[in-house]
Amino acid sequence: MNKFGQRFSFTTFGESHGKAVGVVIDGVPAGIEIDEKFIQSEMDRRKPGKNSFATARQEGDKVEILSGVFEGKTTGTSLAMIVFNENQKSKDYSNIKDLFRPAHADFTYFHKYGIRDYRGGGRSSARETLARVSAGAIAKLMLKSLGIEIVSGVSHIFGIGENSFDFEFAKTSEIYSLSPKFEQAQKDAILKAKDRHNSVGGSVVVKVKNAPVGLGEPVYYKLDSVLADAMMGINGVKAVEIGLGKDSTFIMGSENNDQMNESGFETNNSGGILGGISNGNDIEIKIHFKPTPSIFTEQSTQNISGKVEKMSLKGRHDPIIAVRGSVVAEAMTSLVIADMILLNMGRKISDIKAYYN
Amino acid sequence: MNKFGQRFSFTTFGESHGKAVGVVIDGVPAGIEIDEKFIQSEMDRRKPGKNSFATARQEGDKVEILSGVFEGKTTGTSLAMIVFNENQKSKDYSNIKDLFRPAHADFTYFHKYGIRDYRGGGRSSARETLARVSAGAIAKLMLKSLGIEIVSGVSHIFGIGENSFDFEFAKTSEIYSLSPKFEQAQKDAILKAKDRHNSVGGSVVVKVKNAPVGLGEPVYYKLDSVLADAMMGINGVKAVEIGLGKDSTFIMGSENNDQMNESGFETNNSGGILGGISNGNDIEIKIHFKPTPSIFTEQSTQNISGKVEKMSLKGRHDPIIAVRGSVVAEAMTSLVIADMILLNMGRKISDIKAYYN
Amino acid sequence: MNKFGQRFSFTTFGESHGKAVGVVIDGVPAGIEIDEKFIQSEMDRRKPGKNSFATARQEGDKVEILSGVFEGKTTGTSLAMIVFNENQKSKDYSNIKDLFRPAHADFTYFHKYGIRDYRGGGRSSARETLARVSAGAIAKLMLKSLGIEIVSGVSHIFGIGENSFDFEFAKTSEIYSLSPKFEQAQKDAILKAKDRHNSVGGSVVVKVKNAPVGLGEPVYYKLDSVLADAMMGINGVKAVEIGLGKDSTFIMGSENNDQMNESGFETNNSGGILGGISNGNDIEIKIHFKPTPSIFTEQSTQNISGKVEKMSLKGRHDPIIAVRGSVVAEAMTSLVIADMILLNMGRKISDIKAYYN
Amino acid sequence: MNKFGQRFSFTTFGESHGKAVGVVIDGVPAGIEIDEKFIQSEMDRRKPGKNSFATARQEGDKVEILSGVFEGKTTGTSLAMIVFNENQKSKDYSNIKDLFRPAHADFTYFHKYGIRDYRGGGRSSARETLARVSAGAIAKLMLKSLGIEIVSGVSHIFGIGENSFDFEFAKTSEIYSLSPKFEQAQKDAILKAKDRHNSVGGSVVVKVKNAPVGLGEPVYYKLDSVLADAMMGINGVKAVEIGLGKDSTFIMGSENNDQMNESGFETNNSGGILGGISNGNDIEIKIHFKPTPSIFTEQSTQNISGKVEKMSLKGRHDPIIAVRGSVVAEAMTSLVIADMILLNMGRKISDIKAYYN
Repeated sequence: MNKFGQRFSFTTFGESHGKAVGVVIDGVPAGIEIDEKFIQSEMDRRKPGKNSFATARQEGDKVEILSGVFEGKTTGTSLAMIVFNENQKSKDYSNIKDLFRPAHADFTYFHKYGIRDYRGGGRSSARETLARVSAGAIAKLMLKSLGIEIVSGVSHIFGIGENSFDFEFAKTSEIYSLSPKFEQAQKDAILKAKDRHNSVGGSVVVKVKNAPVGLGEPVYYKLDSVLADAMMGINGVKAVEIGLGKDSTFIMGSENNDQMNESGFETNNSGGILGGISNGNDIEIKIHFKPTPSIFTEQSTQNISGKVEKMSLKGRHDPIIAVRGSVVAEAMTSLVIADMILLNMGRKISDIKAYYN
Repeated sequence: MNKFGQRFSFTTFGESHGKAVGVVIDGVPAGIEIDEKFIQSEMDRRKPGKNSFATARQEGDKVEILSGVFEGKTTGTSLAMIVFNENQKSKDYSNIKDLFRPAHADFTYFHKYGIRDYRGGGRSSARETLARVSAGAIAKLMLKSLGIEIVSGVSHIFGIGENSFDFEFAKTSEIYSLSPKFEQAQKDAILKAKDRHNSVGGSVVVKVKNAPVGLGEPVYYKLDSVLADAMMGINGVKAVEIGLGKDSTFIMGSENNDQMNESGFETNNSGGILGGISNGNDIEIKIHFKPTPSIFTEQSTQNISGKVEKMSLKGRHDPIIAVRGSVVAEAMTSLVIADMILLNMGRKISDIKAYYN
Repeated sequence: MNKFGQRFSFTTFGESHGKAVGVVIDGVPAGIEIDEKFIQSEMDRRKPGKNSFATARQEGDKVEILSGVFEGKTTGTSLAMIVFNENQKSKDYSNIKDLFRPAHADFTYFHKYGIRDYRGGGRSSARETLARVSAGAIAKLMLKSLGIEIVSGVSHIFGIGENSFDFEFAKTSEIYSLSPKFEQAQKDAILKAKDRHNSVGGSVVVKVKNAPVGLGEPVYYKLDSVLADAMMGINGVKAVEIGLGKDSTFIMGSENNDQMNESGFETNNSGGILGGISNGNDIEIKIHFKPTPSIFTEQSTQNISGKVEKMSLKGRHDPIIAVRGSVVAEAMTSLVIADMILLNMGRKISDIKAYYN
Repeated sequence: MNKFGQRFSFTTFGESHGKAVGVVIDGVPAGIEIDEKFIQSEMDRRKPGKNSFATARQEGDKVEILSGVFEGKTTGTSLAMIVFNENQKSKDYSNIKDLFRPAHADFTYFHKYGIRDYRGGGRSSARETLARVSAGAIAKLMLKSLGIEIVSGVSHIFGIGENSFDFEFAKTSEIYSLSPKFEQAQKDAILKAKDRHNSVGGSVVVKVKNAPVGLGEPVYYKLDSVLADAMMGINGVKAVEIGLGKDSTFIMGSENNDQMNESGFETNNSGGILGGISNGNDIEIKIHFKPTPSIFTEQSTQNISGKVEKMSLKGRHDPIIAVRGSVVAEAMTSLVIADMILLNMGRKISDIKAYYN
């Protein structure tokens, strides 16, 4: 399935080396002012080729709106956006045409569909995520008009980092680091892996500020469960935590419970979500990316006939997924929140009466 | 929303202290032999009141099939099951009628719906999970006939445990512990928390054995993302990991990548899932439960008018969620796999031709 | 699939001669006052055994609410209702155990599922529609609080009737006839068919009054297309018309177009729907039911081995579906409108801003 | 909502005078051979400007595949197609910028979304249906490989026609007429309406040949109810019938019931569907289109401020929708059948076992 969301939902299409990658968003409310420069700036945050911490591959990634906007505003109809692929070096992949790259989706796609689209992973390529980022930009424009802000950054790389997050710093950091203190060490870890033709993993934090109380639909479209779905579905993510996450297993209930005083919750161990519903505090999500599977050291694998071969990848690849992945995580979070905003409307008959009067 | 799944989907109903809790499963294939004793035995694994590590609350939890089964076999129509509530001590809650229990969903449900169902959490109660377990039992019967097995257990309690898992041992352990070595220390941790009127968290591992290659629908109904959704939606879960999970951020790509030899993958760091699709290895999921929110020490909270009050919970509560929660996690995993089994059918036109000939 | 609707959705379960028939409604807004007597009165309108124009089969059809209501009001959680079956004469069917009743679903269910639930059609029985009527009653209570009213009646029986509809008269007519003028002739047609061990078809009109402008989601969840889905899915319905329906093919555009004056549309040929969206006029739906398939004259059919046999049905059957079917059509319409009311919320960013402020 | 279908589903985008109209199909099985000429030929059947019975408006309607096909075969990933708009004479509409065209969706879209996209109806334009036709062509390629054929034609225009259908004749008729006998009279009716600056309605028949037994998901995704949804959602359709349709209300049960002999059903009054499931006979659907709303005679309407004005439409418009609409109906039917083919897989545990072995 290539669709995500219920009311503010989107469907993506396109392969790494096909003609284009794009998205159709269904359920965008009418009347949102569309700032195309903002959308492009979100695309650029995700774009590779900007510095030595990402692949040198240059991609234009110019996004074009095809429908759903009239005279600068959304019309309430399906909003399609497209990025035409420019830099399609399919030849880079001819030497691995019949080989399954370790830790990639090559093996599973081939066995599921009986088709080998060897061109950079085809549909399973992280290039699909630019469709998510463009859709996320529309969600952000909607949320912004409601006063909701979503920020993100990289907390740890190869285990290096801290549990204090400077989201302002991340905005200007080349690696979107949340830590002024550890940024240099994090950069060093990336470059060291790169020098060794290897790769590293990393952790990302996403925060939602000013979300209203009440977002999330119990008991099977909870805010936290849908966020977990959205996050775990990002290429390379292997773990998702909400609030204290795993660390809550090391403390007792009396310490973990967020007690209340006059101004609200005294702590935010819950990460802003109770019973799957937002409680008005900041929503905090932590996700963990594995190291980039594409490395240049020799590896052992099977070919499509099941025979073992040695392979050495060529081409240009990111030494870390987490950095550019943080932009995708932020986009997916925006899309989930926009969806929940719409789903939450009409939960009380009194609201419905007011709406229709 | 109270529905989960696409093809093998289910909808649950019922509150903690209402008349009944139940489930309607939609999409159960016809012809599955229904072993009612097995279904009840799954319910009993989840049932409280069995030993000192869980609440002393006695619940009958007798499940009754209402539809969808004829002469011992499923008919392909909607399969409804129900458990009537017996032990409804609503009075236990009269003293907290207007108080939001810390770390519970009381605050968020009240603000979302404008209704205060104070009877044990109402719909947000973990009692709803018996509907999941009964549905999971049907899924298990289906999977069993395909040779797929799902096991689970508790790996850590309050941080105590190991990363080696003995699923056979867990079957007979009172606390479903995966570790013969640490079981006693884990029990001690629970009892110590209980003595102090407090609670502890814990971690659970679920494993799927013999799943076929190809389960999972890219790129937005991936096997890992739907499992994350299913797990994070269980009451008290705050983190979900697949395979190595967070630990994959501490190693390099060359170490993390599962290389292949003649017999398949040499390692299983991926947890059996590549690109969101099962690769034929064991599927491994780790989840982390926060400590039970219901503790007996005094806490500070707000009442429904926003005024701060001190509260002390009474009644009978589990000192740990993870133990009984492991049964729920196993059920949810079974339901996800059953759904993916159906969704995966017809992915190739050659399969469809064979099916209709 | 046993689920209908998107936001105000419901899932039904139960077979004709199983333990119970029931429904779980998902998405009921919180705070609706539940009048149980009204719900039962809707059930009674659909109930057989009341006069000589329907089957003499007596059914209690007492509906019981299992969840989702607390202290007389909906809570926003899933609302389950159940009717336990009382009068299960499975023996009536033993003589046709292996025979496919003509014009029934016996043949298709058997070939689809490989199961022969011979007890009165099992899941395909019209008895399932009592779940729809109970759910429709909840929808009606919601719509009533918004000032929306839904009425219905039988316009034609065996071709006898007129295109002028007296909905007040229908309320007290034993056959829910919309025509004081033709009611007697319609009754005569039913009794004549009954005397001959035969059956007749009929036509039903459903009208929605005071629906707001804007209901319906273009371009694939249009109000008219979803109503068509809802109506055609009722047992025995073979045709659905909106507004003028088929008759609009006999006139020219200049006559068919509803022109406007100061007070709105001058005519209502569109049946209150333009481009799939309600225009504020009365919504008018016409549906046509085939004659009851269960007749007592001898018929030729196949048995489950494919051999031809003569069969004569026994038992008690309605000589017409349309009469009791009109109650079901009214319920389904109510459910569609309730769903559209919720879906329509949040179509404009200005509405969303107002909602969250 | 802009999505239709469950497993073989599609989402469309684009407005009449926007940049492009397109579709993303989700769930296309892998390995289908894609014949681009066939897809274009389907587009051409729907295309206007070919003769005097349709609008003279010339549209290129060249369809381009953007994704989901590799080396001539489908890959199992989302298949996107696009048609860029060429002939966008927005100026034609400047004189009616603020006027609601009678019987169009202008009034309802404006009130729902608060936006007036006056350019030819924007999203509500029948131009959106070329996305349906392109998607339908993919469905047809899939069905063809399974031996299933779908044909259509126009049975009546302005009431002129017969109930005997020559589908071969329709293929070469300029107006897709099913009646060699009445084709000329039908053509005359169209031209007469055109001469009078008026329009006429018409009726269309769609037939599915060689569909397997078992398609359709009871009790809320029945084959007939989903077909009704698909048909009623086509611009201008006001009535849908299955098999005998409304005419079944004029005969008795003994005449309407399809009895069986050795070779199967003796008649096909049911239109190939029993209990919502295909019975192996030809599936027959009749639909009725209202006259084209766009006529050139003066009409009375309101402007966006609610003031009454006289208006006279200009531009180029079809004098009948039913002719080109038949191609759309055929496409929608193909899409429904493809969806049902996939949904039906795995209805029996024995099938699932066979599939996974």
